[in-house]
Amino acid sequence: MENPKIILASGSKDRAKSFERAQLDFEIIISDLSEDELKSKKLTPIELAKELAKKKALDVKKKMEFKGIDAIIIAADTLVEFEGNIIGKAMDENHALKILKKLNNNAHKFISAIAVTRTFEDKIISDYDITIVNFLDLSINEIKYYINTGEWKERAGAYSIRNKASLFIDKIEGSPSNVIGIPMHKLFLILKNEFNYNLLSKKI
Amino acid sequence: MENPKIILASGSKDRAKSFERAQLDFEIIISDLSEDELKSKKLTPIELAKELAKKKALDVKKKMEFKGIDAIIIAADTLVEFEGNIIGKAMDENHALKILKKLNNNAHKFISAIAVTRTFEDKIISDYDITIVNFLDLSINEIKYYINTGEWKERAGAYSIRNKASLFIDKIEGSPSNVIGIPMHKLFLILKNEFNYNLLSKKI
Repeated sequence: MENPKIILASGSKDRAKSFERAQLDFEIIISDLSEDELKSKKLTPIELAKELAKKKALDVKKKMEFKGIDAIIIAADTLVEFEGNIIGKAMDENHALKILKKLNNNAHKFISAIAVTRTFEDKIISDYDITIVNFLDLSINEIKYYINTGEWKERAGAYSIRNKASLFIDKIEGSPSNVIGIPMHKLFLILKNEFNYNLLSKKI
Repeated sequence: MENPKIILASGSKDRAKSFERAQLDFEIIISDLSEDELKSKKLTPIELAKELAKKKALDVKKKMEFKGIDAIIIAADTLVEFEGNIIGKAMDENHALKILKKLNNNAHKFISAIAVTRTFEDKIISDYDITIVNFLDLSINEIKYYINTGEWKERAGAYSIRNKASLFIDKIEGSPSNVIGIPMHKLFLILKNEFNYNLLSKKI
């Protein structure tokens, strides 16, 4: 039997980079699900992230089943929680400034949920991880300089830990890959324990 | 007055990548210092890392002064401490296996020292950061599979946190850039506070 295809159901360049760096053999198929419906529900940040990841995974699963392809589908959703409030992506530079001023000189929680499913199986496994990220104390001008790099775009919390934001992140507690948008160790464990697919041996 | 050149006094590709990702404008000049002399001294891991970083920085400083170039020189040294013992780079695959078997299913300290100096000035500032890294429990076959990727080469602790090792690192405590070989937030603070050079404004 051939190995199933590994599908990353996400348009995030950061997640794709994480997969590439881990030398995974994968394809990207993006869900065209609207997140709005879920976002109006009263869910905790963790529930919301898990639900969104599951919905994306199931949506792409359907597409793959329609094509008759044996595939393991991996979806994720990331958000930032600060003082009980959910912070998503910035809409523009002003919004990014507002977000980063809040996170400045403080710690916030970075929550990434992951959902894994396989075509022609009922199973869907979801999990999440929380990483606490701490920012140094920056001046408004330094924050504005950072925003000019454009790293805030398309990223929860309006920063990119492995790019210029490395200059003002002095400490994290938790999984670093989680802050990039997908907890890679959770992916490893779910694939191995639930789908009999070992990324450190590639036998199935 | 023109800005000084920023020199990374290190041959590490990971450190160069960190600088590139932070969009720093820099050149690489490698010290050809022998580390052996220092290594025979009785130093604590932190003292050793700091001393090595300083020596590398001063060596490259001399080269730049000889050329009459105004430059800020940044050097670093990284090692892993596990149960009081220093772990450096693996010499070969067998050595890598020995190292990774030790670190497996356990936490170790990742120590990176940084030294910063400027040509035609007496000042040299060094600092360090410690990040605790935790590995999942891998089987011998999984460790061997990992070693086959070659990521162990030229890296303290015989792994690369931002590559395939992301699959088995479930938690860190401290700076993530530190685990890549240079504590970027320390670099930011030293340059700003000690050399009046702000990487988030580029004015000097």
